[in-house]
Amino acid sequence: MNSPLKIGIAGLGTVGAGVVKLLAEHDKLLALRGGRPLKLVAVSARRKARKRDIDLTGVRWENDPMALATAPDVDVVVELIGGSGGVARRLVQAALKAGKHVVTANKALLAMHGAELADLAEKRDSILAFEAAVAGGIPIIKALREGLVGNRVSRLYGILNGTCNYILTTMRETGRDFDVVLAEAQAAGYAEADPSFDVDGIDAAHKLAVLTGTAFGARVNFAGVHVEGIRRVTAMDIELAAELGYRIKLLGLARETRYGIEQRVHPCMVKLDTPIAHIEGVFNAVVVEGDFVGTTMFQGRGAGQGPTASAVVADLVDVARGRSMPAFVVPAARLADKKASPIDRHIGAYYMRLMVQDRPGVIAAVSSILANERISLESMLQRGRSQSGEVPVVLTTHETEEAAMQRAVARIAKLGAVAEAPCLIRIEKF
Amino acid sequence: MNSPLKIGIAGLGTVGAGVVKLLAEHDKLLALRGGRPLKLVAVSARRKARKRDIDLTGVRWENDPMALATAPDVDVVVELIGGSGGVARRLVQAALKAGKHVVTANKALLAMHGAELADLAEKRDSILAFEAAVAGGIPIIKALREGLVGNRVSRLYGILNGTCNYILTTMRETGRDFDVVLAEAQAAGYAEADPSFDVDGIDAAHKLAVLTGTAFGARVNFAGVHVEGIRRVTAMDIELAAELGYRIKLLGLARETRYGIEQRVHPCMVKLDTPIAHIEGVFNAVVVEGDFVGTTMFQGRGAGQGPTASAVVADLVDVARGRSMPAFVVPAARLADKKASPIDRHIGAYYMRLMVQDRPGVIAAVSSILANERISLESMLQRGRSQSGEVPVVLTTHETEEAAMQRAVARIAKLGAVAEAPCLIRIEKF
Repeated sequence: MNSPLKIGIAGLGTVGAGVVKLLAEHDKLLALRGGRPLKLVAVSARRKARKRDIDLTGVRWENDPMALATAPDVDVVVELIGGSGGVARRLVQAALKAGKHVVTANKALLAMHGAELADLAEKRDSILAFEAAVAGGIPIIKALREGLVGNRVSRLYGILNGTCNYILTTMRETGRDFDVVLAEAQAAGYAEADPSFDVDGIDAAHKLAVLTGTAFGARVNFAGVHVEGIRRVTAMDIELAAELGYRIKLLGLARETRYGIEQRVHPCMVKLDTPIAHIEGVFNAVVVEGDFVGTTMFQGRGAGQGPTASAVVADLVDVARGRSMPAFVVPAARLADKKASPIDRHIGAYYMRLMVQDRPGVIAAVSSILANERISLESMLQRGRSQSGEVPVVLTTHETEEAAMQRAVARIAKLGAVAEAPCLIRIEKF
Repeated sequence: MNSPLKIGIAGLGTVGAGVVKLLAEHDKLLALRGGRPLKLVAVSARRKARKRDIDLTGVRWENDPMALATAPDVDVVVELIGGSGGVARRLVQAALKAGKHVVTANKALLAMHGAELADLAEKRDSILAFEAAVAGGIPIIKALREGLVGNRVSRLYGILNGTCNYILTTMRETGRDFDVVLAEAQAAGYAEADPSFDVDGIDAAHKLAVLTGTAFGARVNFAGVHVEGIRRVTAMDIELAAELGYRIKLLGLARETRYGIEQRVHPCMVKLDTPIAHIEGVFNAVVVEGDFVGTTMFQGRGAGQGPTASAVVADLVDVARGRSMPAFVVPAARLADKKASPIDRHIGAYYMRLMVQDRPGVIAAVSSILANERISLESMLQRGRSQSGEVPVVLTTHETEEAAMQRAVARIAKLGAVAEAPCLIRIEKF
C-alpha cells in the first residue's frame, strides 16, 4: 500500500464535519480510488467543545489553525474557515509557502486574492484546489479546467446561489412577496439570520468571479462584477414574467465583449423553454458555451454538507494522485489582466414595469422617451384598472445599450403619472 | 518550453478531422493549458485521397495504422477507427503494449473489451482515456472518475443516443410515426443509412456499459445490458404519454440491486416535471445519483465533430499533464465482477396500451389477469370509439416485478378482443 495522504482540516462547521464523515465512511473506497489512503491527521476549529457528531479519535486537535500550515505530518491543508481575509487567508498563504497543498471551499478568499494565491502555489509546485467554492457538489471547476479545456469559452452563466433560487421559486409557487418568503426561509434554515450576503448577490458574485477567472484564464476580478440582488423582485413581476413566458432567476453571467470581460449578477428574465428556467429550489446550474463543445449545462445541489464534502474530497483525491494543473488553468504569470466591461456598455433586452395613473397620455409620454433613446419596444402589456387608480404597465424592449435604458428610466421615473420607481429587469437570450 | 506531446491519430472521419482542426486552431491555448505543445506528428486513415478540409502539412501519413503503435515519435495514439474488433482493437492493444498512451472514442471496443484494455494500460503505466466514447462533449467520464469520486453511486441514467432522442422529439412535435421521422432524419443526415445501431439501442447500450463500469468500479459487462430500441414506439403512445403527464425517452439506466447490477436500455416514460424529460433533439444528458452529492445532471451535445473533438482533446491535455487514473477508477485487478441483475427481476411501474374490440367484458378480462398476477392499477384511460371498432385502452400500474408483468401481457395478448400485441413501456420514477 502506498503511503497515505495526510490531511489537516481547519474549520469544523457543516462542511468540515461532512468531510470528516465522508473520509471515514468511504475510507476503503477512497484508498482504492485515490491509489493511497486519505488519512485525517489533524483538525482545528474555534470551539473544541461543540457537539459535531463526528469521531475524531486519533486525530490531533490544534488550537491554532496556523499550526496546520507548518505541521510536518500534514501534506494538504483543507481550509473551511471562510472569509476573504483574516485567519483563512493567512492559513492558505502560510500553507502554500510551506509547500503544502491546499483545498478550500472559500469563494470569498478566491474572489479577492485568487491570482495571488495561484502564484504562491505555483512557486512551490503545490496544488491549490477549490471545487467546493462554486456550485457545491457540481464538478464545474474540473469541467472548466479539464473537461472543456479544449474550448475557448464565449459565455458562461448560472444559478449560483441556492438561497436566492429557493426564495424566487417559492415566491413564484406561492405568489407571496420577498419579505414573507425570506422570513420563512430563515425560519426553515434555508437563509441566514443576516441574509444580505446571499440575497444581495455578493455570494453569487464571488462564485462568478472564480468561474470567470477559470473559464477565461484571466485574473479573478471581483471588483469588476456588476451586482444586484433580489430584494426588489416582487410577486407581481414574477407573475407578469410568467404571462410573458419568462421566469425570473438570479444569474451570474460572464462573457467577453469588445470592452473586456462583462461580469454581471442580477435578476434575469429567462424564457421558459430554456433549461436553466427549470432549475428550481436549492439547486444550482452552470451553463458553459464553448467554441467546439457548444452548450453544456451542469446541475446539482449548490450547497449543503454532503454535496460540498463531495467536492472537497474530489480535490483531495486529485492531490492524492498528484494530478495537478495551474489553479486557473494557465500559469499565474500568464493570467490575462482583462478590463471589466462596464455595465453601461451592456447590450441586452429589458423588461420594465411601471405603476402609472390610469389616465390618457401616459403611454404616449413613456413611448416618446424610449423613442428618443432609440429604444424599440417588443411588447406592451397594460393590466386592468385598480381601486387605487394605479395600474401596472409592462414594456419589453429589443436589444439596446444599458446606458440608454438607464437614461430613459430616469426620465420616465420623473413623469407625474408614474407612481413609484420603475422596476427594470434584464432579459437574457440564450 | 517543455517537450511537446507527440500525437498519432488513426481514423480521419468526422471526429478525426475535428481533432486535427481543434489542435490547429487552439495550438497556443492548448500549449498554455497543457503545459506543453500538443503536436500532431502522424495520421492514418483508409482513404488518403478523401477531401477532408484539414491541413496535414508536416504530418506523416501512415498507410498502416498499426505503425502508429510502434512509431518511436508517437507518445499517444488517438484511435478513431471504431468497431469492437478488427484494426481498432489490435491498434489499441499494440499501442498499450508498446507503452503508449491511448485516447479513444470507441464505445463498442470499450464495451466489449474494456477491462482487458484497462489491464494492459496499467501493466505499462499508460493512460487509457475515453471521454469521447460517451455523451460526446459532456465530460461525464471525468465527472464519474474524478469529480464525483467521493461518492458511492446508487443509480445513473441518461439519454445516450442523440439520433433516438431526435427521432422521439420530432415524433412528439409533429405527431408523425417512427418510419416517417426516421426517413427524414436519414435524409437530413441525423441518422445513418443503416440505423439499427442507433434505433435498436445498441449504441446506447455500449455507452451505458462503459458508464456503469466507471461509476460502479465493475468490469464492463455489455452482455448484461437488457436492450430494446425505439422502433415500436408509436405516435399514439407519445400522445397518450403526454395526456398522462409523461414523455417517452430512450434511456440507459444502471443501478445496484440485490441480484447484481441492473443495466437497461429501452424506451421509458418519464414525468414531465423531471429535468431529463426536457432534454430534446440531439442533446444528451446523464444523471448521477451519489450518496453524498445527491442528484447531479450533465447535459450537452452527444455527438458531432466539435463536441467529440472537445472530449478527445480534453483527454490529450490530461495525457500532456501526466494526469493519470486507472481507466475505470479502481485498478483493473480490483474491478468487481458483479452479476447482471436479470430483467425478470426488475421492479417498476408500467404503461400498457392495448387495441381492443369495443365490447363488454374486455376490461374485466384484462383486469382479472392483472389481479391474478397481483399487479395493481394506478390508472386506466379508454379513448373514444373508432371506425374500425378498435379502441386504445391505456393502463398504468403500480410497482410490480417484470416477470409478473410479462406473464400478464402474454395472457392479455391472447384475449380474443385484443387486436394487436400490447405495447408495454416501463415508467421510471426519479
